[in-house]
Amino acid sequence: MKKIGILGATGYTGEELLRYLSRHSEIELVFATSEHDAGKALRDLYPWLGRFRDSHLITGEQALNVTVDLVFLCLPHGESARWGEKFLTRGVKVVDLGADFRFSDAAHYQQWYHQPHPCPGFLAETVYGLCEWYRDEIRGRRVVGNPGCYPTATLLAALPFLAAGVVAEGPIVVDAKSGVSGAGKSPTRTTHYVEVNEGISAYKVGRSHRHVGEMEQELSRRRGAPQSLVFTPHLTPMSRGILAAVYLPLREDLSGDDLQGILQTRYAGERFVRILETEQPSTRWTAHSNLCLLHAERISGVPMALVTSAIDNLGKGAAGQAIQNMNLMLGFSEEAGLL
Amino acid sequence: MKKIGILGATGYTGEELLRYLSRHSEIELVFATSEHDAGKALRDLYPWLGRFRDSHLITGEQALNVTVDLVFLCLPHGESARWGEKFLTRGVKVVDLGADFRFSDAAHYQQWYHQPHPCPGFLAETVYGLCEWYRDEIRGRRVVGNPGCYPTATLLAALPFLAAGVVAEGPIVVDAKSGVSGAGKSPTRTTHYVEVNEGISAYKVGRSHRHVGEMEQELSRRRGAPQSLVFTPHLTPMSRGILAAVYLPLREDLSGDDLQGILQTRYAGERFVRILETEQPSTRWTAHSNLCLLHAERISGVPMALVTSAIDNLGKGAAGQAIQNMNLMLGFSEEAGLL
Amino acid sequence: MKKIGILGATGYTGEELLRYLSRHSEIELVFATSEHDAGKALRDLYPWLGRFRDSHLITGEQALNVTVDLVFLCLPHGESARWGEKFLTRGVKVVDLGADFRFSDAAHYQQWYHQPHPCPGFLAETVYGLCEWYRDEIRGRRVVGNPGCYPTATLLAALPFLAAGVVAEGPIVVDAKSGVSGAGKSPTRTTHYVEVNEGISAYKVGRSHRHVGEMEQELSRRRGAPQSLVFTPHLTPMSRGILAAVYLPLREDLSGDDLQGILQTRYAGERFVRILETEQPSTRWTAHSNLCLLHAERISGVPMALVTSAIDNLGKGAAGQAIQNMNLMLGFSEEAGLL
Amino acid sequence: MKKIGILGATGYTGEELLRYLSRHSEIELVFATSEHDAGKALRDLYPWLGRFRDSHLITGEQALNVTVDLVFLCLPHGESARWGEKFLTRGVKVVDLGADFRFSDAAHYQQWYHQPHPCPGFLAETVYGLCEWYRDEIRGRRVVGNPGCYPTATLLAALPFLAAGVVAEGPIVVDAKSGVSGAGKSPTRTTHYVEVNEGISAYKVGRSHRHVGEMEQELSRRRGAPQSLVFTPHLTPMSRGILAAVYLPLREDLSGDDLQGILQTRYAGERFVRILETEQPSTRWTAHSNLCLLHAERISGVPMALVTSAIDNLGKGAAGQAIQNMNLMLGFSEEAGLL
Repeated sequence: MKKIGILGATGYTGEELLRYLSRHSEIELVFATSEHDAGKALRDLYPWLGRFRDSHLITGEQALNVTVDLVFLCLPHGESARWGEKFLTRGVKVVDLGADFRFSDAAHYQQWYHQPHPCPGFLAETVYGLCEWYRDEIRGRRVVGNPGCYPTATLLAALPFLAAGVVAEGPIVVDAKSGVSGAGKSPTRTTHYVEVNEGISAYKVGRSHRHVGEMEQELSRRRGAPQSLVFTPHLTPMSRGILAAVYLPLREDLSGDDLQGILQTRYAGERFVRILETEQPSTRWTAHSNLCLLHAERISGVPMALVTSAIDNLGKGAAGQAIQNMNLMLGFSEEAGLL
Repeated sequence: MKKIGILGATGYTGEELLRYLSRHSEIELVFATSEHDAGKALRDLYPWLGRFRDSHLITGEQALNVTVDLVFLCLPHGESARWGEKFLTRGVKVVDLGADFRFSDAAHYQQWYHQPHPCPGFLAETVYGLCEWYRDEIRGRRVVGNPGCYPTATLLAALPFLAAGVVAEGPIVVDAKSGVSGAGKSPTRTTHYVEVNEGISAYKVGRSHRHVGEMEQELSRRRGAPQSLVFTPHLTPMSRGILAAVYLPLREDLSGDDLQGILQTRYAGERFVRILETEQPSTRWTAHSNLCLLHAERISGVPMALVTSAIDNLGKGAAGQAIQNMNLMLGFSEEAGLL
Repeated sequence: MKKIGILGATGYTGEELLRYLSRHSEIELVFATSEHDAGKALRDLYPWLGRFRDSHLITGEQALNVTVDLVFLCLPHGESARWGEKFLTRGVKVVDLGADFRFSDAAHYQQWYHQPHPCPGFLAETVYGLCEWYRDEIRGRRVVGNPGCYPTATLLAALPFLAAGVVAEGPIVVDAKSGVSGAGKSPTRTTHYVEVNEGISAYKVGRSHRHVGEMEQELSRRRGAPQSLVFTPHLTPMSRGILAAVYLPLREDLSGDDLQGILQTRYAGERFVRILETEQPSTRWTAHSNLCLLHAERISGVPMALVTSAIDNLGKGAAGQAIQNMNLMLGFSEEAGLL
Repeated sequence: MKKIGILGATGYTGEELLRYLSRHSEIELVFATSEHDAGKALRDLYPWLGRFRDSHLITGEQALNVTVDLVFLCLPHGESARWGEKFLTRGVKVVDLGADFRFSDAAHYQQWYHQPHPCPGFLAETVYGLCEWYRDEIRGRRVVGNPGCYPTATLLAALPFLAAGVVAEGPIVVDAKSGVSGAGKSPTRTTHYVEVNEGISAYKVGRSHRHVGEMEQELSRRRGAPQSLVFTPHLTPMSRGILAAVYLPLREDLSGDDLQGILQTRYAGERFVRILETEQPSTRWTAHSNLCLLHAERISGVPMALVTSAIDNLGKGAAGQAIQNMNLMLGFSEEAGLL
């Protein structure tokens, strides 16, 4: 039994981590923190919770004194790295669900998050926790930057084609739709039921969403050259789910079968990535799971592929992938707790 | 008082026409048809209806004997033209909410609808009823092809830039999201609440949706050369609304202000098209209205504009625009019944 | 043209008032206030607004200097009466959408709102603005307390049976379901999309909701003796609508037809109250309208009637009924702006 | 490893059974049937399914030749008993998710289902599968009638008070709200997204819903005398969940704490029934679980208790409870596959 802690257990990703961890037979939860709700029992916040329901939230400071093998960080960026450093220097492994450990280059981080990286010394050690692409590196590391929700959906769709060398020059256009839990648990005008219901709208269009940074890092790494991205996120009237429509300029005259074949070959044997043969992925099929569903089509008459990708933003896009990373880091079966 | 009839009054567009017509002080409803529900009172289908609530549905055959000035056709394509012809030859004006009178070329119609046009002789007379672009032609005509919902949202966004000559070569990518009423009132697996809720998915991707035909017709007409289109419709968990994200390759290095200026200039004085200065359009703001909300942004670092366009698919995308066309054809104020 | 003002125009009821007023041809809007957003144009808050879109919000203090015939108060209770008094003493008519003028007895008000009434001197003049029951009184008054949303749905269902003398002793049970706009526009945990979606729950059960006070006042008045009420409101995953299930103990062995007959007789000729013959009312049919839909059934084998009542909480339950009251007070057609 | 089969695997309860069974380590699925989709792989219907995804649907006739320990029946009533009989006579245990084995008396069944019971000879052996009330009987039986969704929510709320002898004479009023999956997977007008969204309405009110029969059977059994029931189901705009508001006339002047104490005592140690201390149950907290959340309050001033009860209609209200019954019948841990 490994000892696990959660820093920031009262947001939607913290809640989802508790859900997954409660089904994981090889771990025990030694703490869950909340600066605001410290002292409350988890059952008071999550009436549905079974295992762990009688645990009480503690503060981050109190957590520093608890013996623990691995912590999940569900904190705002900046905060995340500061707390991560404290645990890393205590010999504790870290999966950061925030942005601070997703970059290999502190300057690149600063460009997108408009502040110096709080502990750049650890960036050389971190790995981008997209399990299907960095599995071997993740196994040996003590710190992993869990990918963002939009990047997970986008990269799982686009990277196989970049790796196969079939993507032509020019920007990749990603038109993505997210459920409201992606906007966080803080009540705002934007997340009010009446403002969301019956309304879909774009936000932070073009290249202004922070996730563009980590997507370009990974797209460019795979291409071996700078890859630009046009990214349009949309807030969609649903609680969970991301659907990304990824428009790839094609170098060659590939058929739909060719494109599907590239996905099938790359993800053969993967447990959490599935290629749909004839249907378009729906976010509904990924809800409450760690799945990514993909489908590729050739646009007739235009040298372009459309790859659609569906995930649960709280599952494969956050807590599910974080558990998958934990499983790799601690030597468990990669699927433990995730089925 | 002009006499108005509706052919096919029991679908969502027929219902919405009744809603708008009941607020229109210069018309009277002389019939509404349904082959399936003939004999029923309108109040039995629409408990909310005030005016017209005691009218009874009749069959199409019965309607042919009623004196009427203008009929709305809310029928499947093919059917639409066949009934349209009968009324036109009786001297009745026709607004077709189906596809049959949207094309100027019978071969182009056949390419997209896979059947010969039922009455090609009338195509020379018809006009594409996008009011803000064909207002003068509509005024004099006796038959108008009311545009499809996706085309309305897309064309109002894209045409000003083609007209201004700023769109570069290459395909225009349109990623569009529609509420479920766009899929019609027939209960199917696709429209079942449980299948729709929490699920967004693409369908008929690339160039396979029938609306591509009329969009390319109008885009090409405005460019003065063939304009290709990549079109991805999505079914979205909401009852109403279309949001189109229109990605335009740019010929010149235009700023966001330049792009907004093109929209503002083109639609100055238009009552139903509004340019949002700082916010992104949401479908929520267009529900139950004949409005189209637009916003344009320049994608930084890439020669591309993103124009977002929101309408109510049953309003400006169907019944609202049909009323606007009727108003033009019958010499009413263009806004009558629509405010 | 009468001059109309709105105190508190940025909540959901203020917004809905603007929507209705913009269709009303006999009024002009002379001000709309917001302490928080004073200075902004209405179009900035309501991109869909046509008429009035270029008006600018002012403060309440500024509004006191504007010549106006009637003001709508959309303010918190307490605040409402304080501002109402200022306008009444200036000779301006007042429709209060808050609770302060719904009671004829200051002590009764204090019992439910836990504060002394701010201007008890006006209570003798006020009338409970349930138009179908107090039409004649409303016509002559200068101040009307517009009923709450739950009370409107409940009272329109229950009062005909109390008036007919067929309700037996014992509590009336009302199980009511409300859309989220009834909880106001302030973002809270309760109104967060993710907390609402897929969740229905009761709140303030038994006799703890403030609306119980005005409902018992009106039920008892009609019975001519104290009538107790068991009231369970529920927050329901929808933006608009109230459905009330009203369980009435019956004095006599009445049939379903008898019960429907009592409703039909009482509301014969009413424009905004409709009795459904065979179907159960759905909130969907009342959305964006001033309608109340009713249906009564006899429970077989038990001396009880079930009356179901649907309204739009922002329509007949707030802004619609407020307009109806204004129409009565200013001598307009009762339906003006409401169709 | 026990061998399990599902008769009727393509409806929502069949789908949910597959979801639960795929997490159950002590069973293997030996068949899943569908007369309509026989031959298809499960992955074609359920793209999200992991385990069993390559199994192919067979017909009921084919299933009769497969060696199996227990079958779940997800079939229409009547059908259910006919197939149940075939498997029972082959020595196979049966959990029927339909209505046919919920009654101990064939005449009572006929009263509510308007047809003679297809195999009355088995009724003496069957047990009503409400696990928290019939656990010991279930353990020894070979056929269990899995309770309906409304009855599960209602009975778990009401039975403790009848058992405690505190319920006064007179009808119990149950006002219940159900998600749309309770209406089945067949596309109908009633389940069309646009008809459901923003609409809540009652249906089969009074005593006309078939579930009244089994509820009265169990309520009366616990009271030891006939107990009448007034039952109002509502269709609610959500995919899953039942919330029942149960109004109980009280014999004694019990406090809220007394009422909560009755629940806590009765369900102490139960894994799937939880008593909320201060909050009202929300269906949202029970989604995708086998939980029932309960809360009781005393109505002040009226001798009445309100007990609110939330379940997932597909979980504790169908597939979850069916798994719980299977676990009891096959000697597994009662929680296996359900956490």
